[in-house]
Amino acid sequence: MQTQPSTTDTPSPGAAYTPTDRTIPTRSRERASYDRESVHAILDEAYVCHLGFVRDGAPVVLPTLYGRVSDRLYVHGSTGSRPLRMAGASATEQDPGLPVCLTVTHVDGLVLARSAFHHSINYRSVVVHGTAHQVTDPEEKRLALDALVDHVVPGRAADSRPADAKELAATAVLRLDLNEVSAKARTGGPNDEPEDMDLPHWAGVVPLRKGHDALIPADDLAPGIEVPAYLAGL
Amino acid sequence: MQTQPSTTDTPSPGAAYTPTDRTIPTRSRERASYDRESVHAILDEAYVCHLGFVRDGAPVVLPTLYGRVSDRLYVHGSTGSRPLRMAGASATEQDPGLPVCLTVTHVDGLVLARSAFHHSINYRSVVVHGTAHQVTDPEEKRLALDALVDHVVPGRAADSRPADAKELAATAVLRLDLNEVSAKARTGGPNDEPEDMDLPHWAGVVPLRKGHDALIPADDLAPGIEVPAYLAGL
Repeated sequence: MQTQPSTTDTPSPGAAYTPTDRTIPTRSRERASYDRESVHAILDEAYVCHLGFVRDGAPVVLPTLYGRVSDRLYVHGSTGSRPLRMAGASATEQDPGLPVCLTVTHVDGLVLARSAFHHSINYRSVVVHGTAHQVTDPEEKRLALDALVDHVVPGRAADSRPADAKELAATAVLRLDLNEVSAKARTGGPNDEPEDMDLPHWAGVVPLRKGHDALIPADDLAPGIEVPAYLAGL
Repeated sequence: MQTQPSTTDTPSPGAAYTPTDRTIPTRSRERASYDRESVHAILDEAYVCHLGFVRDGAPVVLPTLYGRVSDRLYVHGSTGSRPLRMAGASATEQDPGLPVCLTVTHVDGLVLARSAFHHSINYRSVVVHGTAHQVTDPEEKRLALDALVDHVVPGRAADSRPADAKELAATAVLRLDLNEVSAKARTGGPNDEPEDMDLPHWAGVVPLRKGHDALIPADDLAPGIEVPAYLAGL
């Protein structure tokens, strides 16, 4: 489903990420995981991440598309967009990059408890801390852009016109390595207090479902172009 | 659907938010909106926000529940959780609060263009910049907690046991006023280049759908408790 990495410094697939001060939660530690496959699965299922960075001392959080190639995440944008410009501005000889926090969340269910206090959400999330760097290698940039398209619809990159030189020049790509990363999840029903069990309030979970409606062809789609197989399997 | 505000400083419902340097996008300005009703509608439809703050100079982005009461957003957490502790630590006599960026995003559709470059997502998002403050007034805290529960399932706060003194003491609530806020949205089909129109790639939109599966009653739900009407209407 994901493009293969262009480098050979890939950790073994089964290895876990090493917890750090930033990725060990202060609470509900039993919900945290550093398992590489679990992290990748959560990342691969979502469409957008929320990318946080610091601008003039204040936090900024923007939704954006992303792609994964092994243990690297890529985000992209116009060379004029804020985070891309900021990373670019800092890409001096020392290339300090842009400190970011990239978070992906799935909301899987609404947890209704007898007590207001124990209401919750079933979710799966991944939080990545690190420093994003501009991708300057043309080959890596192409792989990253393919990964971004394939992240939205696996198989799509090969069935679209690749970026031309002008489009490549207008697009900046940031790389964020998956090193300091954790997953967190809540599953199951409500955790009410024993003394609340006889209260007359319904309790349980509303499982949320994802899906899609019928495809909407472009107004100007040429006649005779069939829906590709990779879309039928979404 | 939302609890009424406890104060009388509410702007008129039809008024728009005033754009600022931080809420005027550098790109795609035509997608930005400052309309109060549009902002509220996007906020009210989502279950979680992504809350960004700065810790030791680095950005942190965490998913969390929230509630809205008129032009105030509330997030909550254990008094031991990081952002709550940080806001608490700064709640001195001057009460500088915690600078945050709170972002909510709906992914409405996958936009497939003939060219990789024009692939996109149909989305609606709201970005709120501001300073979050600890809620210390007991009455406002109760209203905020009701809003948090009602945000997940409208009508639920009245059908659950309210927080007791111990639970209230263990819960910290942050308030973020909606002042510096913008909505952004993309709708419609792909915007391909004229010279790409005859390429043999399917183009169009995959509209994403939200829904839920059958309710899962708690294992220990007492017999005879019916599913409440407000859940049937979800």
